[in-house]
Amino acid sequence: MNFANLQALMQKKQYAKLIDNLAKSHYADIGEFINQLDTKESILVFRLLPKKVAAEVFAYLDPESQAQISMQINEKELHDILNELYFDDKIDFLEEMPANVVKRILRNSPESERKLINQFLNYPEDSAGSLMTIEFVDLKKEMTVEEALARIREIALDRETIYTCYVTDAFRHLEGIVSLRDLVIARPEQKLEEIMQKRMVAATTLDDKEYVADLIKKYDLLAIPVTDIERRLVGIITVDDIVDVIEDENTKDIHKMASVGEIDINLLCASPLFLIKKRLPWLLVLIFVNIFSGLGLAYFENTIQAVISLVFFLPLLINSAGNAGSQSSALMVRALALGDVNKNDWFKLLKKEVVVALLLGLAMSLAVSVIGVFNSTFDVAIVVALSMLSIVLIGSTIGMSLPFLLSKLNLDPATASGPLVTSIADIAGVIVYFSIATWYFKL
Amino acid sequence: MNFANLQALMQKKQYAKLIDNLAKSHYADIGEFINQLDTKESILVFRLLPKKVAAEVFAYLDPESQAQISMQINEKELHDILNELYFDDKIDFLEEMPANVVKRILRNSPESERKLINQFLNYPEDSAGSLMTIEFVDLKKEMTVEEALARIREIALDRETIYTCYVTDAFRHLEGIVSLRDLVIARPEQKLEEIMQKRMVAATTLDDKEYVADLIKKYDLLAIPVTDIERRLVGIITVDDIVDVIEDENTKDIHKMASVGEIDINLLCASPLFLIKKRLPWLLVLIFVNIFSGLGLAYFENTIQAVISLVFFLPLLINSAGNAGSQSSALMVRALALGDVNKNDWFKLLKKEVVVALLLGLAMSLAVSVIGVFNSTFDVAIVVALSMLSIVLIGSTIGMSLPFLLSKLNLDPATASGPLVTSIADIAGVIVYFSIATWYFKL
Repeated sequence: MNFANLQALMQKKQYAKLIDNLAKSHYADIGEFINQLDTKESILVFRLLPKKVAAEVFAYLDPESQAQISMQINEKELHDILNELYFDDKIDFLEEMPANVVKRILRNSPESERKLINQFLNYPEDSAGSLMTIEFVDLKKEMTVEEALARIREIALDRETIYTCYVTDAFRHLEGIVSLRDLVIARPEQKLEEIMQKRMVAATTLDDKEYVADLIKKYDLLAIPVTDIERRLVGIITVDDIVDVIEDENTKDIHKMASVGEIDINLLCASPLFLIKKRLPWLLVLIFVNIFSGLGLAYFENTIQAVISLVFFLPLLINSAGNAGSQSSALMVRALALGDVNKNDWFKLLKKEVVVALLLGLAMSLAVSVIGVFNSTFDVAIVVALSMLSIVLIGSTIGMSLPFLLSKLNLDPATASGPLVTSIADIAGVIVYFSIATWYFKL
Repeated sequence: MNFANLQALMQKKQYAKLIDNLAKSHYADIGEFINQLDTKESILVFRLLPKKVAAEVFAYLDPESQAQISMQINEKELHDILNELYFDDKIDFLEEMPANVVKRILRNSPESERKLINQFLNYPEDSAGSLMTIEFVDLKKEMTVEEALARIREIALDRETIYTCYVTDAFRHLEGIVSLRDLVIARPEQKLEEIMQKRMVAATTLDDKEYVADLIKKYDLLAIPVTDIERRLVGIITVDDIVDVIEDENTKDIHKMASVGEIDINLLCASPLFLIKKRLPWLLVLIFVNIFSGLGLAYFENTIQAVISLVFFLPLLINSAGNAGSQSSALMVRALALGDVNKNDWFKLLKKEVVVALLLGLAMSLAVSVIGVFNSTFDVAIVVALSMLSIVLIGSTIGMSLPFLLSKLNLDPATASGPLVTSIADIAGVIVYFSIATWYFKL
């Protein structure tokens, strides 16, 4: 699909041709095209789409476009679109909409659905409950394969997935799982009871979505059943939604590792005030931490005054400590997040880190001593080289240990962000550097 | 599954009971248990597993355990296990194995498979070709739905997925896609030609796997077909493998953003020398960049000597610039990676960044001037506050622009790592701070 081409048709107001071209595209592409139009254009194009296509495209629009469109179309149109959405997409949509839109939609829903929607909107934000869909295939163990296939055929169109089906008892308790593959392979007269898998992986409505993602990843599932506290099957979560969860979690971690709060909207739509709210708290905390480097420097005022050229190497040294520390902390944070290492591996990794840091420090102090000799006196070069070795060792050890410490305290290891590690390493760096200098120059 | 329990049985050498317990678990869990045993134990447990279970578990072992086990078992056993693996898992396994193991396996494979394996091992490391599997369901458009279902039933066991089937012509060109859902819903006498989807998303063998992941994410696919340069269908990639690709790409980005080279093995297994090779190059580059802060400081030697207390605020100021810059760069790198923004959005985002940075700088210079007044003279406090405002603005602008610049140059935006941005912001910080001081104190 050629965006520039469509854009041109749009500008030339050749709408019939535009819609012709769009209608041939994948719904995701049409959504992408509409997302980047301005409000007026997006509503115009959306209304021109064939009704069935419009309903499908709606799920691919971003919340801003969805909101704008739902406020411009009439009740009947909105009702038709929402009826075509899978239940989890509908909930996602409602979660993002302003209160007046939600009210309007609930007013026009039948009582039973209104109750269900309210229940879903009440699940905690990051829970499996808020993510699941109710459109799954449920079967009974007394059914034959043939009966099961007939039932699937009948309801397939309305179900988010038919590839994993769920066997429940009269109380809606989950008894087993049958994949469509198993059904296709089995003999028509076999009972589901014989072919269903009884050992199942399931989540509960209150499980964190990150935990659900881990289960799906680990067991290579296409969908996972979700049960309520009474162990009744209430929904399923499919792998395509989990792919989004995984990306969201990674975004959260990457932001956290740069000391930014949780940002779950498109950067282009974020208001300056919103961004400030996400960035300022950590910047202020870090200022507070950095005061201690200042106090350290004040303590060594005499040394600095005596050998002023020591100051020239200060940014180099404290940055090197911070850089080595950031590297170590990023490695640990990621390995902990992936489950490659767990919080009890700290000591094993610490031993390795010390070896690595000593060798890194050695190489870096060699590099820096060459610079030192050329730029300053031989004595300063020695002090700088000695400091580099110690500082890289200390910075790396702090950077690698902090995530484990946070993890032990049941805090998010990603809080051991580059900026935090850098600031802590700086304090250590200032103290070590000027202590070595004071000792070497006998001040 | 209770690890401690299994561990205890292992120690008491109650192997029968151990295997009984294991055999009830999911293959992924058995794999996880074996992965954390030492070599001798892992081989012992693996050999005790029922043959069919062992073969399934093998795909869940990490490369180290796979290598150890394949070197200890005999040709026949290895052959049986490999026969049970899907072709993509077999290739993954061979890619990780030492040359002598690969040779041994190839020697025992039939000519046709040997050729195929060699072809797959030759696909570039991060290509779709290296990731795909050949076990897909291919159908012909002349088939009726009933015939198609019969064929699927016949071959389902050996196919990695049967939920998306591929319609090819006599030259193996991809003509359409039929989902098992479509087949189940359709009338038995319908021809595939009538129900297959002709508009398809496909990848080619040489596409980067990250691009393939983007396609699967965007179109919510369960599998994507892969064609060769002559547009023949040669394989498919399923969503479970793409989930791993997504996590790998995120790991790579997170490492890069902390100035660490690509590390694709478990941290616990990485040798110190390997880690040094991944960390030292960037640390040395950063030392080189940091020299310029030193030169900047040397240039302002007189100012420093005149007002020595300026030095106390140096780490605080340059870190604040670095922290604000790291935040901006992380936000941009991530948004670019997700496609939330593209390289042409730079100016739009720059305008917003300036507003944000000015307000952040204002708040931070307020905070720091309070500290300044308490810790130093009023004059120094003014210089520090003024510098903070300018430095945060400059740091943020650099941090947010660098990823776009790299992207324009077709380099990876993630190279605009926290440490690099910090080091560049430092240089600017030193110059701005002491320029303001020199001007203010009329030195």
